[in-house]
Amino acid sequence: MEKERFLVIGGVAAGMSAASRAKRRKPETEVTVLERGSFVSYGSCGLPYYVSDLVKDVQGLVVYDAAFFREKRGINVLTRHEATKIDPEAKTVSARDLDSGEETKLGYDTLAICTGASPSRPSFPGVDLKNIFVIRTAEDGIALKSFIKESRPKRAAIIGAGLISLEMAESLRENELEVLVIKRPGSILRMFDDDMAEIVESELRGKGVELIKEAKIQGFEGNREGLVKSVILEDMKYDVDFVLLATGSAPNSLLAKEAGIKVAQNGTIVVDERMQTSCPDVFAAGDCVGQKHLLTGKDVYLPRGTTANKQGRIAGENAAGGNEVFPGVLGTAVSKIFSLTVARTGLSSAEAASEGFDFVTSSVAHPSHAHTYPAPEPEDMTIKLIVERTGRLLGAQIVGRIGVAKRIDVFATALYNKMTVDEISNLDLCYSPPYAPVWDPILVAANVAQRKLA
Amino acid sequence: MEKERFLVIGGVAAGMSAASRAKRRKPETEVTVLERGSFVSYGSCGLPYYVSDLVKDVQGLVVYDAAFFREKRGINVLTRHEATKIDPEAKTVSARDLDSGEETKLGYDTLAICTGASPSRPSFPGVDLKNIFVIRTAEDGIALKSFIKESRPKRAAIIGAGLISLEMAESLRENELEVLVIKRPGSILRMFDDDMAEIVESELRGKGVELIKEAKIQGFEGNREGLVKSVILEDMKYDVDFVLLATGSAPNSLLAKEAGIKVAQNGTIVVDERMQTSCPDVFAAGDCVGQKHLLTGKDVYLPRGTTANKQGRIAGENAAGGNEVFPGVLGTAVSKIFSLTVARTGLSSAEAASEGFDFVTSSVAHPSHAHTYPAPEPEDMTIKLIVERTGRLLGAQIVGRIGVAKRIDVFATALYNKMTVDEISNLDLCYSPPYAPVWDPILVAANVAQRKLA
Repeated sequence: MEKERFLVIGGVAAGMSAASRAKRRKPETEVTVLERGSFVSYGSCGLPYYVSDLVKDVQGLVVYDAAFFREKRGINVLTRHEATKIDPEAKTVSARDLDSGEETKLGYDTLAICTGASPSRPSFPGVDLKNIFVIRTAEDGIALKSFIKESRPKRAAIIGAGLISLEMAESLRENELEVLVIKRPGSILRMFDDDMAEIVESELRGKGVELIKEAKIQGFEGNREGLVKSVILEDMKYDVDFVLLATGSAPNSLLAKEAGIKVAQNGTIVVDERMQTSCPDVFAAGDCVGQKHLLTGKDVYLPRGTTANKQGRIAGENAAGGNEVFPGVLGTAVSKIFSLTVARTGLSSAEAASEGFDFVTSSVAHPSHAHTYPAPEPEDMTIKLIVERTGRLLGAQIVGRIGVAKRIDVFATALYNKMTVDEISNLDLCYSPPYAPVWDPILVAANVAQRKLA
Repeated sequence: MEKERFLVIGGVAAGMSAASRAKRRKPETEVTVLERGSFVSYGSCGLPYYVSDLVKDVQGLVVYDAAFFREKRGINVLTRHEATKIDPEAKTVSARDLDSGEETKLGYDTLAICTGASPSRPSFPGVDLKNIFVIRTAEDGIALKSFIKESRPKRAAIIGAGLISLEMAESLRENELEVLVIKRPGSILRMFDDDMAEIVESELRGKGVELIKEAKIQGFEGNREGLVKSVILEDMKYDVDFVLLATGSAPNSLLAKEAGIKVAQNGTIVVDERMQTSCPDVFAAGDCVGQKHLLTGKDVYLPRGTTANKQGRIAGENAAGGNEVFPGVLGTAVSKIFSLTVARTGLSSAEAASEGFDFVTSSVAHPSHAHTYPAPEPEDMTIKLIVERTGRLLGAQIVGRIGVAKRIDVFATALYNKMTVDEISNLDLCYSPPYAPVWDPILVAANVAQRKLA
């Protein structure tokens, strides 16, 4: 009898999780991964720290390399191989070896599409000039870091003001660059409420980042060598040595679409909760698919490394005959922006409003830990809660300097369980002076929200 | 019409919360607090950091002083006033001014007993010798710290090996003392599983703490001046300059008992979920009462500052005509022991076994955050889960160096909601390299437990 073949397109987060899980569940399966880039299983969220040189070598971003997967897990990993066509009838995938140019065709019994997403490239005039970078893959990081090391630029413009843009603002400031963050009208960090984003704004300005908020970008201007030399706004022109585009990302679903696999309006490959596509034996996971929002039940596109890994694992399990489901997401996110930690989960005020919820919001600043352990001194964190009139929590946002990240996870766990602020205020959370005040900021936030509802 | 009078006995955690809450709910009430000590509203959990001199002055432990409560909250605070008798018929409390010796009698409409607990004093021969200290109140801390500063002792014995004992071991090592921790047969940190306690044991030894585990203490020996000079075990004698007794605490319920208020077998004042005692118009809260365990539904005695504050608040609310309930506790705790953070919630293996649960346990060591943010380098934390065969989480314990404290709170929130490890493994927790690996240790622990159950 021939061995069963599981083929995976894409070898970063979802892809390697799917491959590893399928091999673990059914070790006799022949598992092959096609990865377009040179690296597999790397943490692209670490790219800002690679560019800032906190991580010296790009290998420092890799969790396990291709050799590990081949030798320790018995997974056939083909890097620098781009899948060019899926034939769901013949159950084959065509691929091109990007080094030799050679074309091959691989058969499969089950397939997982984990093609990820690509940075959005706004259609501004001049967007194809040289020294306009994006930051998504290890190769993008290498290109930007070598440019900075070799060309010693002085002044950079970042287009966009989301979490990655602002992490990169810090990263470039670490490189002692002048940094302009240019964004279209509206506040920065749109997944946060405006009042929370304002705290981050003042941190940015305090760290010497120039923020141009109401920008109507007309395009980029180049010099004779075709290198970008300025960003053109409606009424202004900024001279820069390079540009980083960070205006979001779009799912890589063309390959699936061309194979007749169902793709949604927003470009995500349509999957059910078992990560199965419209095509028998084809699964998809990671940044190329959408998710169900646990609070609204609606389809959303909230790409995250954590979600990609979980979905990949489930795709691999089910491709190998399992029956696991992915329940959905809450849009939980955290980011270090200079000395601030910013974190959120659930719905923002704008999202709760557009979903038609009847809600109140409450904000409170409360210390990270007890003043009886002043090493370091406690720092206030600001917690904003979005609470349905019924008392049920809809969302939480925290901005602070100490102890923020895993506190958002308590709120994410509360949201998963549809807790009310009354219930949250009674949680038996841990206390000791080095870690929390006797009234944890989580409990104080719930208490303040209770009073708003009263 | 006369003003309504709310009287509170005890002004540390529960007492001041009760007083503040009643005054807030019904500002026209006359609120009086009797406190035996000189300080109100202080963080006794900060005493190890006061003794270690991280907090220089005892005032640094105080959250709000008596003047604040008098002037800002309109609460009549009488420090150095000891309640000597409750007369529930006449609705009066007798009190002695500890400075003048004067006796007074105060009437009340509602009363809250927040008398806390006292350190257990084992009945060893010689236990009343001088230089045998306890650590519970601000005054205890002052006595110990002045003794260390003035007498410059070299060698200390701590009797007991619970969280406070070990926090004090660190505190005394910070004072450059030789520290012996002496405990009766059985492992240290009995609220943790043995394998978790062993990690702490090796930390203690690494920090130069001498641990005598199987000690059968016969008593203490004194010198001619009545100062303790050695700890006598069955087969051994240890010379020390002072002794710290830290073998637990017992509820202060004598006053209630003498007034005919119902007191349980374990010495706690019996209250319902509204914090009401057996006596009309008398409430009780804090370390002098018990709690309901949220997992077993049974009465337990797990005194904590957090619980005292929550219960106090509810007692104050209800004494002022409200109707709030305290749902119960999970025994959540965290402590810094040298460079380790140790945390737990729910049932330990021993507790789950004695409650008759059919359960498995799983342990895993996983990094605190991504290796792509090596500032500081990630450190493994060990997570042990106690999981019912049905998949429902019963308890969690974590020992590590970074990011432990608020991760135990995610498990506490999961326990409150009776989550299974399947559900926990799907939580949408936050990820960014400085704060977590892409698979958070919480999710990895749940995944490992799932495999144990399979």
